[in-house]
Amino acid sequence: MSYVYDAIVVGGGVIGGAIAYNLAKRGGKVLLLEKERLASKASGAAAGMLGAQAEMDGEGSLFQLARKSRAMFTQLAGEIKETSGIDIELINKGMLKVALNEQQQHEYKRVIAIQRQSGEQADWMTGEEVRRKEPVLSDAITGAMHLEKDGQVEATQLTLGFLKSAVARGVVIKEFVEVYYFQLSKGKVSGVVTNEGNFYSENVIVAGGAWSKKLLSKTGLQLDTYPVKGECFSVVSHSQILTTTVFSHGCYLVPKKWGRIIVGATVKPRTFCKKVTVEGISILMEQAKKLMPSIVEAEWERAWAGIRPQTADGLPYLGEHPIYKGLFIATGHFRNGILLSPITGEVIADLVEGKPTSLNLEPFRVDRLVRQLT
Amino acid sequence: MSYVYDAIVVGGGVIGGAIAYNLAKRGGKVLLLEKERLASKASGAAAGMLGAQAEMDGEGSLFQLARKSRAMFTQLAGEIKETSGIDIELINKGMLKVALNEQQQHEYKRVIAIQRQSGEQADWMTGEEVRRKEPVLSDAITGAMHLEKDGQVEATQLTLGFLKSAVARGVVIKEFVEVYYFQLSKGKVSGVVTNEGNFYSENVIVAGGAWSKKLLSKTGLQLDTYPVKGECFSVVSHSQILTTTVFSHGCYLVPKKWGRIIVGATVKPRTFCKKVTVEGISILMEQAKKLMPSIVEAEWERAWAGIRPQTADGLPYLGEHPIYKGLFIATGHFRNGILLSPITGEVIADLVEGKPTSLNLEPFRVDRLVRQLT
Amino acid sequence: MSYVYDAIVVGGGVIGGAIAYNLAKRGGKVLLLEKERLASKASGAAAGMLGAQAEMDGEGSLFQLARKSRAMFTQLAGEIKETSGIDIELINKGMLKVALNEQQQHEYKRVIAIQRQSGEQADWMTGEEVRRKEPVLSDAITGAMHLEKDGQVEATQLTLGFLKSAVARGVVIKEFVEVYYFQLSKGKVSGVVTNEGNFYSENVIVAGGAWSKKLLSKTGLQLDTYPVKGECFSVVSHSQILTTTVFSHGCYLVPKKWGRIIVGATVKPRTFCKKVTVEGISILMEQAKKLMPSIVEAEWERAWAGIRPQTADGLPYLGEHPIYKGLFIATGHFRNGILLSPITGEVIADLVEGKPTSLNLEPFRVDRLVRQLT
Amino acid sequence: MSYVYDAIVVGGGVIGGAIAYNLAKRGGKVLLLEKERLASKASGAAAGMLGAQAEMDGEGSLFQLARKSRAMFTQLAGEIKETSGIDIELINKGMLKVALNEQQQHEYKRVIAIQRQSGEQADWMTGEEVRRKEPVLSDAITGAMHLEKDGQVEATQLTLGFLKSAVARGVVIKEFVEVYYFQLSKGKVSGVVTNEGNFYSENVIVAGGAWSKKLLSKTGLQLDTYPVKGECFSVVSHSQILTTTVFSHGCYLVPKKWGRIIVGATVKPRTFCKKVTVEGISILMEQAKKLMPSIVEAEWERAWAGIRPQTADGLPYLGEHPIYKGLFIATGHFRNGILLSPITGEVIADLVEGKPTSLNLEPFRVDRLVRQLT
Repeated sequence: MSYVYDAIVVGGGVIGGAIAYNLAKRGGKVLLLEKERLASKASGAAAGMLGAQAEMDGEGSLFQLARKSRAMFTQLAGEIKETSGIDIELINKGMLKVALNEQQQHEYKRVIAIQRQSGEQADWMTGEEVRRKEPVLSDAITGAMHLEKDGQVEATQLTLGFLKSAVARGVVIKEFVEVYYFQLSKGKVSGVVTNEGNFYSENVIVAGGAWSKKLLSKTGLQLDTYPVKGECFSVVSHSQILTTTVFSHGCYLVPKKWGRIIVGATVKPRTFCKKVTVEGISILMEQAKKLMPSIVEAEWERAWAGIRPQTADGLPYLGEHPIYKGLFIATGHFRNGILLSPITGEVIADLVEGKPTSLNLEPFRVDRLVRQLT
Repeated sequence: MSYVYDAIVVGGGVIGGAIAYNLAKRGGKVLLLEKERLASKASGAAAGMLGAQAEMDGEGSLFQLARKSRAMFTQLAGEIKETSGIDIELINKGMLKVALNEQQQHEYKRVIAIQRQSGEQADWMTGEEVRRKEPVLSDAITGAMHLEKDGQVEATQLTLGFLKSAVARGVVIKEFVEVYYFQLSKGKVSGVVTNEGNFYSENVIVAGGAWSKKLLSKTGLQLDTYPVKGECFSVVSHSQILTTTVFSHGCYLVPKKWGRIIVGATVKPRTFCKKVTVEGISILMEQAKKLMPSIVEAEWERAWAGIRPQTADGLPYLGEHPIYKGLFIATGHFRNGILLSPITGEVIADLVEGKPTSLNLEPFRVDRLVRQLT
Repeated sequence: MSYVYDAIVVGGGVIGGAIAYNLAKRGGKVLLLEKERLASKASGAAAGMLGAQAEMDGEGSLFQLARKSRAMFTQLAGEIKETSGIDIELINKGMLKVALNEQQQHEYKRVIAIQRQSGEQADWMTGEEVRRKEPVLSDAITGAMHLEKDGQVEATQLTLGFLKSAVARGVVIKEFVEVYYFQLSKGKVSGVVTNEGNFYSENVIVAGGAWSKKLLSKTGLQLDTYPVKGECFSVVSHSQILTTTVFSHGCYLVPKKWGRIIVGATVKPRTFCKKVTVEGISILMEQAKKLMPSIVEAEWERAWAGIRPQTADGLPYLGEHPIYKGLFIATGHFRNGILLSPITGEVIADLVEGKPTSLNLEPFRVDRLVRQLT
Repeated sequence: MSYVYDAIVVGGGVIGGAIAYNLAKRGGKVLLLEKERLASKASGAAAGMLGAQAEMDGEGSLFQLARKSRAMFTQLAGEIKETSGIDIELINKGMLKVALNEQQQHEYKRVIAIQRQSGEQADWMTGEEVRRKEPVLSDAITGAMHLEKDGQVEATQLTLGFLKSAVARGVVIKEFVEVYYFQLSKGKVSGVVTNEGNFYSENVIVAGGAWSKKLLSKTGLQLDTYPVKGECFSVVSHSQILTTTVFSHGCYLVPKKWGRIIVGATVKPRTFCKKVTVEGISILMEQAKKLMPSIVEAEWERAWAGIRPQTADGLPYLGEHPIYKGLFIATGHFRNGILLSPITGEVIADLVEGKPTSLNLEPFRVDRLVRQLT
C-alpha cells in the first residue's frame, strides 16, 4: 500500500505555502510539490504591498476578502517568527495613494467616502501635507488618500515563512517535482502523477499561479485566467528617506529596510516571458522620478519580473472543482497574492476539512465563468 | 491564414540549436521554442568533453556516430565563429583515460587494440609517461590511454554559437514558450499548441532532452528514457597547470582557458532535481585529489548540476515518430550531447528533408524499445 | 571653516557600526568612512556565533568582556528592529561544544567547573543525551558542554542593523572613501585625509579590522596584529533538522533560519587573500560529516572567506593612541568580532566621551605589546 | 639572499597585463601584484571600443599613440589565442560617429578632412546611408563619420588574455597583495613593501590606474590625475540587430556577440565610488533610445561602473620617475586604456630594457605637469 497524504498541495508559492501551513496547523499530513524552486515565480517577485484599500475601491467581495486578510498579518507575523525564525518584515506605516491631477483627486475623495462607510480609515491629505509627511515627494503630487492600515511585508520572506513553518509542522516539501496529471475516477481525485512517480491523497489543492490553468485544462475545466508580467526594480539610498509606501496610477514605491525602495510594476498581459525590457525600466523610472525626484541619486540595485495570474472578472478562483470532489483550486490572485494569502490559506483549509468558511465564497467559485466544460 | 514554418524545433539546448542551425543552412524558415531560457539545462551544465574514444570502447553504432561527429568540430568552430562571432573554444589537446589499478590497465589496453583496428589513434602511456606529460598528476595513476583526437569545447558557447548562427540565418527563437500538445491528425503533425498560442508546421522536431518523454507521452509514444543528474564543480589555478583532459572511472578533469578546471560528474539516475548535494561535491573532490593532489591549492569557484536524458539501451533516439509523420525526435544523448550535436543536427536535417542520411539510423529508431503504444 | 564632526569612524564593519551607533545614541554628529562596501569583509563573512563560553575557557579579561557583551544582545535586537526594521535573527538556543575523544572530554569537564565558578551555566551532556537533543549528530560524539546562553545572530544583519540604526540617528556614511593619513599635530588628531578630500574631527576611531595596522603604521604605532583567513560554506536541508549550534575543534555548524547551516571555519594566518581553496572546503566537509553524517544529503549553497584581525596575545586592542590624543583604536577581535561588538561600541563611546568605562580596559591597551615606537 | 625579479608590475588590469606580457616575451622574470582581483576595476568595466579616430580628432601625440596601438590588435589577438586559448573577440566592423545636429555634422566633416590628411580612412555618410547600413538607427541621426578601422574587443577577455599569456611565459601573479611603499635609496628603486612582505627588483612599474596617484605620492611625485566614474549597462536582443559600433556625444552602443549591446558611459569626475545611480541609467537610456528607438524591446541585462584615471591635460603618463631610476609609471589612460594597452606594454618594456622606443614619449613624461616635488 502506498502512503496516502491527507492533502497534496501543488505549488510552492505564497498561496501554496499558506494552504500547507493552515492544513498542517489543523493536524493534517501534507505533501507540497513545486515544479522548480520554492518562491521562484510571482511570490518571489512581489513588492509585498498589503493594499486592501489602495488596490480596491471599497465595495464588492474582493474588498471584503482583502480587508479580512490584511487583518490577519499581525498575528501571522508572530506565529511565523516563532515557528520558523523568519521575520516577514511586516511594516504598518500606511500607504499614500497619490493624485497627480484633478480627476484623480476627485476620484480618490469619492473612494475615501465609500471606504469610510465600510468602517475603514481613509483620509485626504493635501499636497503640502503629503510633503510634510514625506519631504522627498514631488510638488507634482496634488494630494493623496492616506490609508493608515495598508502596510507591507517582504514577499519572499512571507512565502518562505509559510513554507518553513509548514515544514516545522510536518509538511513534506519536494522541489523539482512537476505534476503531469491528476488521478481521477468516479468524480473524485485520488492523487497526482508526477515526474517522480505517483503520490496519493483524496485532497489535492492546485495553487500553481499562472501555471494552474494548463494543469486544470486536463480535467475538463478551462479557467479563464491569463498570465500578466510585472516588471520591477530596486534602488538603495541612505540620504533620501521615504517611510510610507507610495501608490500611484502606474507606479508604486515601496520602502524596505536598509534604505531599499522597490519600484513597480508594469502590467504586460498574456505572456509567460520573464524578461525585463528596457521599456519597462524606462517607463517605471520616469514615473518614479515624477513621484520622487531625488530618486535619481539613489543607487541602482537590480531589475526583475514576475508572472501573475489574472482572471477575466478580476476575482481569484477559490473553491472545489465542479466535477471532481477533493480537487481544490486557489489561483487568480493577480497583484494581490501576498495580501490575500492568509485568508486563502484559511478558507481553503476550511473547504478541505468540509467546514463552513468564515466568508461567502460564492463570488470566487471556480465555475462562475466556465466557458467550456466537456 | 496563419504563418506556416518549414520546421519547428522544440528545445533550446545544444541538440535543438544544432538542428535549427542545419535546417537554416539549407534554407528553411525555422521556429525554435524553448520553455525557459536557452542553454539553461544539460547543455549549459556540460563540461564539453568530446570523448568519442574515452566514453565508448570502439565498437557499435554509437562509436560510429561519435567519431563522425567529433570529426565535424574543426570546420564547425570556424563556421560558428564566422557567423556569430562566438568562439566555441575547441581544444584539440587529447585526452588521458587513466588507470588506477591493474584491472583498468588490462581493460584499457584491450580497448586500445579495438580502437586501433577501427583506424583510431590510441596509445598506452605508462604512469611515468603520464606524469612526464602532466606533472601535476598523481603517482596513483599506473598508466593511461592517450587519445589524441578526443578534444573538448566550451559547452555553453557551443550551444549559443549554434543558436546565434541559426538566428543569423533567419531562425526565430522564442524563450519562455512551452509546448503543451502537438496538433496531430491523419497520421501527421501540423503544429504545436503552446502557452503563447498555436504555431504551424508540418515538421516538428522534439529536442527537449530529459523533458522530451513527457511531451511525447501524449502522442502514444512512451520513450524509455529517464533523467540522470550530473553534479560538477570548477576550480581555478594559475600555478597548477593541467593541459590534457583527464578521464577516470567516476571523475574527470577538464582544463579550460584561464586556469579553470571543471571536475565532473556524478551520476544520479531518475531525478529532475537540480540541487547539488554535499555528497556529490565530497565524492568528486576526493576523486579529484586522487588524480591531481595539488588541486587542493586551487581556488574554489562554483558547483552546479545538469539533468541528462539517458535511455534503456544507452543509445540516443534519432528518428521519426512511428505514427505521426513529420514529428521527429532527437533525445537520449546522456553524457554525449555536446559531442553528438553536430552529427545529430545533420542527420535530423536530412530526415526532415527526406534525404538519405550519411549514417544508418536504424539503431537509433525511436520505436526500438517501445513498450507501450496505445 | 570646514565642518567639524564630533567623531569620525574609520571602517564600515560590525565594530565601526557599533561605535557609530553608540556615539549617535549619545547625541554626537558622526561620520563613518568605509573604503569599499559596508559589511564586505570579516563582518559579512562571519557565522554569527556568540560563543562567550564556547570560545573562551572562563578565566581572564577576554571572557569578562565576552560575557558582558553577550548579555547585551537581547536588548540590542529590540532596539535595532525598532530603529531600522532590521531583524538581527538572534537565536538563544544554546551551543553544544562537542568532544570527540577522551582528552577533549576531560578538558571540557574542567572548563565547565571553571565557568560555573564564574556564575555561568554550563552542563555536561553524554553522547546519548546529545543525540537525544539533536538526533542528526554522530555517534562519534562522546559528550558535550551544553552552553545554554551562547546564542547566535545573522552577522550581516547585525552589521547592517547597527549601521542603519546609526543612519536613522543622523550618522553620515560614505562608502568608497579610503583614509590615507591622519591629520596629526601637537599630540592630537584633527582629521583624516582621504581620496575624497579632508574631513575634520578631534575624535577619530580606527575600526578597520585587519586593515587597521597599515593605517596606524603611519602614526608610529606598530600594532602586533595579523590577518587570518577563515573559509566557510553553507548548505540547506529541510529534512535534516539541527537546532543547536555545534562547536568542535576545527569545525562548527551554525543552524540558521530556512534550514540553512553554516559550516566554518578554517584558520589560515598571515594572508589577505580571500580566495576559498579546495583544501579548505575539503577539510571542513570531512569534519562536518564526522559531526553530522546526514549533512551529505543537504544541498550545497556557496563558499566564502573572511579576513579576521588576530593579535599576538589574542586580545583585542581597545583604547587611545599612546601619542595622539583623540585617536582611538578598536581592532583585533579575531573570531569574536560579532560577539564583542556591543560592548566595544559602548566602551569606545565612553572613551571618546571621556567617561569611565564599565570595564577595566587595561588588558586591551593599544601599547601593551608595542615593539617599535618611533 | 632574497629572490630578485627582473621586474615587478603593480596592477592587474589591462595596462599591467600588457606590460607583464611584453616583458615576459623578452625573457624577463616578472612578478605582477594586484591588490584585489585581476581585471576588477576599469579594465573589467570597459566596453572595449578601439576608437582611435572616434575619440581623437586626428592631431597630436595621443592620436599617434592610439593609431599605432590600434594597428597592433590583429596580431595580438592571434598571439593571445595561441598562448592562452582566450579569444579577445576582436571585431573589425568599424564605427559610426553619428551627428544629431548641424553643428556636429559640420565639426565631424572637418575632422574627416584632418584624419584623411593623416592617412586614415574616414568617410561621411548621410543619415539615409547610415540607416541603410544599420536599419535600427534613428531618423534623428543626420549623418555620421564612418571609421572603418575603429574596431572593438571584449575588454575583460583582453585583460585576462594578456595576464594568462604572461603566466604561460613564466610571470608570477599574486592577487590580494597591496603595495604599501617602494624601497627607494640612492635615487633607485629596489623593491616594494606589501601586506605579504617584501619583493625585490630594480624595475618596478606602477600600472595601478586611478589608484596610482596615491601610491606615487609617497615618492614625492604628485601626478595630476583624478578618478572618473563611468556607468554602463547592457541589453540583449536577437531581433534588433546592430552591427557597427555607434558613437555619439554622451552615449555609445557597442554590439557584442550573442545580441548583447553595451550602452555607455557616463562621465562623473573625482569619485572612487563605484555605485551605479538611477540618474546614470536614466540618462544613458534616454540617449540610447534617441539613437536606436527599438532598443526599448531589448532585454535588460545589468548595470555596472568603472573608475578611470584621467589627467589634467588628457594625456597618459608613460615614463620613468623623475627622481628614482627603475621606477616606471603607466597610467592616466582614461577612456582609452583598452585601445592603448598594446603600445603601452611595448614602450614600457622598451623603457625597462633601456631600448629606444618606437615613438617619442616626451609628451607623456611623468613630470610634465608636476606641481609639487619635495
